[in-house]
This record gives sequence, C-alpha cells and structure tokens, in this order.
Amino acid sequence: MAASKLISNNVNIFDLDTPALVVDLDIMDANLQRMADYCDEHKLALRPHTKTHKSPVLARKQMELGAMGLTVAKPGEAEVMLQASPQEMLVAFPTIGPAKMARLKEVARRTSLTVALDSLEATEALSAAQVPAKIFVEMDTGLHRVGVKPDELAPLIAAIKKLPHVRYDGISFYPGHIKHIGEEGMGEMTKLNVMLNQTLEALDKAGHTPNVVSGGSTPTMYQSHMIFGMTEMRPGTYIFNDRNTIHGGACLLEDCAATVIATVVSTSVPGQVIIDGGSKTFSSDRLLNDPGVTFGKVLNAEGAVFHKMNEEHGFIDVTQCERKFHVGDKLQILMNHVCVVMNLHEQVHGHRKGEVETTWPVAGRGKLT
Amino acid sequence: MAASKLISNNVNIFDLDTPALVVDLDIMDANLQRMADYCDEHKLALRPHTKTHKSPVLARKQMELGAMGLTVAKPGEAEVMLQASPQEMLVAFPTIGPAKMARLKEVARRTSLTVALDSLEATEALSAAQVPAKIFVEMDTGLHRVGVKPDELAPLIAAIKKLPHVRYDGISFYPGHIKHIGEEGMGEMTKLNVMLNQTLEALDKAGHTPNVVSGGSTPTMYQSHMIFGMTEMRPGTYIFNDRNTIHGGACLLEDCAATVIATVVSTSVPGQVIIDGGSKTFSSDRLLNDPGVTFGKVLNAEGAVFHKMNEEHGFIDVTQCERKFHVGDKLQILMNHVCVVMNLHEQVHGHRKGEVETTWPVAGRGKLT
Repeated sequence: MAASKLISNNVNIFDLDTPALVVDLDIMDANLQRMADYCDEHKLALRPHTKTHKSPVLARKQMELGAMGLTVAKPGEAEVMLQASPQEMLVAFPTIGPAKMARLKEVARRTSLTVALDSLEATEALSAAQVPAKIFVEMDTGLHRVGVKPDELAPLIAAIKKLPHVRYDGISFYPGHIKHIGEEGMGEMTKLNVMLNQTLEALDKAGHTPNVVSGGSTPTMYQSHMIFGMTEMRPGTYIFNDRNTIHGGACLLEDCAATVIATVVSTSVPGQVIIDGGSKTFSSDRLLNDPGVTFGKVLNAEGAVFHKMNEEHGFIDVTQCERKFHVGDKLQILMNHVCVVMNLHEQVHGHRKGEVETTWPVAGRGKLT
Repeated sequence: MAASKLISNNVNIFDLDTPALVVDLDIMDANLQRMADYCDEHKLALRPHTKTHKSPVLARKQMELGAMGLTVAKPGEAEVMLQASPQEMLVAFPTIGPAKMARLKEVARRTSLTVALDSLEATEALSAAQVPAKIFVEMDTGLHRVGVKPDELAPLIAAIKKLPHVRYDGISFYPGHIKHIGEEGMGEMTKLNVMLNQTLEALDKAGHTPNVVSGGSTPTMYQSHMIFGMTEMRPGTYIFNDRNTIHGGACLLEDCAATVIATVVSTSVPGQVIIDGGSKTFSSDRLLNDPGVTFGKVLNAEGAVFHKMNEEHGFIDVTQCERKFHVGDKLQILMNHVCVVMNLHEQVHGHRKGEVETTWPVAGRGKLT
C-alpha cells in the first residue's frame, strides 16, 4: 500500500480507538486479483466504481491490476479520483446544472470523460457547455430507476449524434433488479439477454452500433461473461464485499474484507450490550431483501444480534450468547452495506492478520455534488 | 450570522448546486428564541446537544441566547465545539478507552467537563487517567438503552465518590421511550415523575442529593417543566426540527428550518422522477413509529411520495401529482431526521426567504470517536 503510515506496525485492530473501520488487506488483495483475473479470462474491460472505497490510493491499485479507468457518480468524486490519474473516467449518473457542467469541463481537461445519461436535456446541457464528453445512453433493463426503454434508444442516440462537442460512444445499464444468483435470478438474466440481443441488433440496423456496452451488478458480477454483448463491467463492492454481497450469492463470509471494531460501553440492561457505534457509524441501511431488521453481523460473539440503533448507540441482544460481556470489550462487526459505511468514516485502517499496516483517508467521502 | 460568506447575497436556494442542505434562518432564529424563552420562564438550565447542527458558529449563537454550556456525544465533537468557547461541556455518552481518556483530559483543560456514564468501570478509567471530570450518573427511565435502574444509583454514586480526580455532580436520563405528546405519552410522563420523585427522595436520604438533574427529550421538550425535579435540559433538534419532531407532536411544519434542495435528473420512467440525492444525502433513517416507508416530504410538489432510495438516487412517485416534471426541476424536501442529514453534508446554506445569506461548514460531521 502506498498510503501514508499514520500508525506504527505494532498496533492491533482491537487496540484502535473505536469505532474504527478496518480492512483486511490480504482479503482485499485477493478480491482485487480475483476480479482482475476474471476480466482477463473473459476479455471484459474493467472500470471499477470507486463509490465503494472512495480512495484514490485504492483506485490506483485497481488500475495497476488492469482496470482501464474508473467510475464515479458525481463530479466531486471525479475531482477526487483525478488524484489516481485514470486514463478514462465515467460519471455514471445524469449530471444536471451549470455548476456541474463547469466542473466536468475541468475534469475533461485531465482525463477522457464519459457521462452516462438518459435524456436529450442532459446531453444538450453538456454540449452547450462545450464539455468534450463521450456519452453512454442509459437503458432501463428492469430496475426502473434511470434509463430509457430499449425502443427509445435509437431516436435518443440519433438526436445526440447531432450535437456538437459530445460524442455517442455506447450504451449502459444496471440490472439492479437481479437480487440473487439463484434460479429466479438466472431466469431474469435470460430475459436480460433476450432484451440485449434484440436491442443491439436494432442499434446495428439503425447505424448506432455501440463501441461500449457497459453493465453488470454486484450479485451477477462473476456471471458477467454470460450477459449478451456486454464489453465492460463497473463493479464497486467486490473490493471489500459485505453482508449484502453474501446475501446476493456473490461471495462468502471469508471474502469480506471490511469490518468495524466497536467497544461495549454499557452492560446495564440485562441481556443487552450497547456499543459505541450506531447509524452514524454503520448507516441505517437494512440488509437487502431481508424481512428481519439487523444492522451487521457480530463476528466475534456467536449468537449476538445487532437489532437496533440510534446515532451513537448500537443495541446488541446477547440473550443467546454463551460468553459474558464487559464494558470495554471489543466487537468486530461485518456491515450490511460497505459503500455507505465508508462514506461515514474519515479514515480506514488496513491490517494483515489483525496488525495495522497502513491508514488511509476516505478522500472521496461526502462528495454529494 | 458570524459565519464566513462564501456565496454572495444574490443566490437563491433554487440556484445552488444540488443536493444542497439549506436552513431558513428566520425559522431557526425563532426556534432558538422560543427555547431560550421557555427555559427562562421555567428556570431550566439549557445545555443544547450540538449533534443536531455540528457547528461551533451555531453553538455560539445558542450560548449568546442563554445556554449555560454545550452537550456532545464524543470527544471528537467536544474538540470541535471548543471553538465556541463554552463554559461547560457535557459528554453525554459513556467514554471508554485510553485514547479517549487522553483527549478528554485535554478538553478538560479548556472547559469545565462533565461526563454522563452508567458504570464504575467507565468512572474508574476517567479517575485513573486523572481526568478532572464532573460525573452525571445515567439512570434508565424506560428506554432501556444505557443507564442503571433507580435502585442501583445510590451504590454506584457511593463508589464513584471514593474515586480521586472525578466528582459526582448529578444524575441524567433520556426518556426516549416517550415518542409522542399524546394521551399515552402523558401517561408515560406521570410514571416518569413517580420514578423521579422516589429516586430523588432516596438519593437525598442516602446523602447523594444531585446538584444537577439533567434530562428531557425532543417530543417532550416543551413539557420539560412538568418533569419532576429536572434542573436542566439538553435538546438538540429544536434548532431546526424535522419530520420526526412534527410526528412526535413537538412542532409544526412551519417550524422546520432545514430542507434539502434536489434536482430532477431523470423522468424516463412514467409516474416517477429520480432526484440527485439518495441515502448519501438523506440517510436511510425512516420516519419514527411510522409503518410506511418514506424518506422525506416533498414541499413543493403536492402528492409526490419519496418512497425509495439508493445511495445517489431518490425515487419519487408522482402518479398523484397534478403538475408535470422535467429534468432540471428543483424539489425542496423536508428530511425525516435532521441530525443524521447534517452529518452527511459538508456545508449548509443559511437563507432568508430563499436568498442565501451565509454558508457554514459542518465542522463536527463524521466525528465518530
């Protein structure tokens, strides 16, 4: 790791001031290598979404392992990620408003910029502001979030091609409606492939053959080679993984690199301990597609249930635990959703086998615009 | 406002880059004055919790209006709030671990420090580290979060009194189990008063008469004078209020000062618009005690329902709206829980009648330790 060493090598993660966000570097390295190998094997371009780690240091590492560029959501994130000197930068969010246009123009001076969007209005704004951006036209494949319907692609692309300064370069999609790689998910994948097959054929006929077909999602990340016509993927979570990734079937518990170390601060209510982290530390994100309400998995206390939070207080039900708890005990907790947790922390401690090796700032946190 | 003027007076809140967190200064000023007057009238000391605004500029304003000190949850917040030069600082959270002890010792050099805690372990740690702290012993009045049972107070206080460097100064409690000032809430308040009456009598008899009885909660904030024996309150949310405060019966919609301005970035799915803010902007906090799932109230689009979020995307159902929506439209949204929203933003724009007057940084955001 090239990050500055703020903490000596001798500190154990359980001796850090808490709550502390820690990353097992051995697991992270293996996750990065696995994705690099996968993309190599299947000749898929890799443009990782940096929203998960929010760190130019880790973005640099992804590119050293073969990523052709980076993905961000907002101009503020793009500005931070310029520190990693990417050759290509994709802003995978419709960028609206004069302030953002000016910032993107500046970003485009320093890297090859692509913007994914789904309206002529958004493209006209880029064109009018003379932002030299490549355009991905976003297609809705079933999530019903952003993106036009397949049959609306060709007319929108035709209109975009008439605009100066911007250049149509491909299509993008996010099949976030596929929640799990089970039988149902595979059925959804077949539907997606039929849709992509028809869409790409129609675009060919209309003279709008895309250079890039950019897609993929976390649950389907290692099935990406089975998605018809896709040339590149933009995974984010794979670097760390989290409970949602396990739940979606895309990783195992031992593939999860990021955890939070918290301290027991109160044991005064029988059957319960309070830790020094709540929604300000873990976010209020619930486990996806889970009817229960839990905010993390306590790794070092079998039977403990993290079921409730206030901003600074985490409520852990320990009625099913055999071990006893004391004020000052440290708990290691796997979060539901690592991206939003990263956004809440100022720094991350990288460790190997519990020994802190490096500490890096979350440089891209809180970049809302 | 004493904050630096980063933006000229001529900018309207709807012209800000979005998502933008804005505060109506007229409403905020009225909220601050109302609480100051209330505490004056009822001879209650006011020690506002700064977790809501996280700004030393606003903390200063609270003290100018008569607050006798400030409340924080973590040493990191205390460090930031020293910028406001408070005479008294209460850390209302059990503070555990050597790093925090060292930091609190430093804080205690610059202000009169009090720590609220509920265990002998936590007090012994302060004493051993020679932190000259006053101690509030936390009592559980029904929330079952932190705090000892009433009959455990006297023995704990007796043990604390034997420790050097620290000094027993009072008791504290947070009746967060009272969710609404309705009939049920008033019934809970009666139970609370019986408990406090008995507890204070027992403490008197045991020779542990508290100098301070610190309590209160947001739903009950303007009923605080009816809480038996309470000498001070520590409200936070009152400066801005939010949907939860309305829901708890403690304010009206027109008393809510803080809102988020967001931009419509996609209208491609019929009956829906997507805005440029999701859980990274609003947090995933749901409306308290509400079976529905909404993440804010859209103030300038009657019938719009903000029902779903991803990190950067807010999903607004507009099927019940009469008006039409276009990419670039600005929506003004009242959040469920203002404290956690403040923690997600780097800056806040203060406005009067929509014209931005001042912009201040959220200096205390992200202070987890």
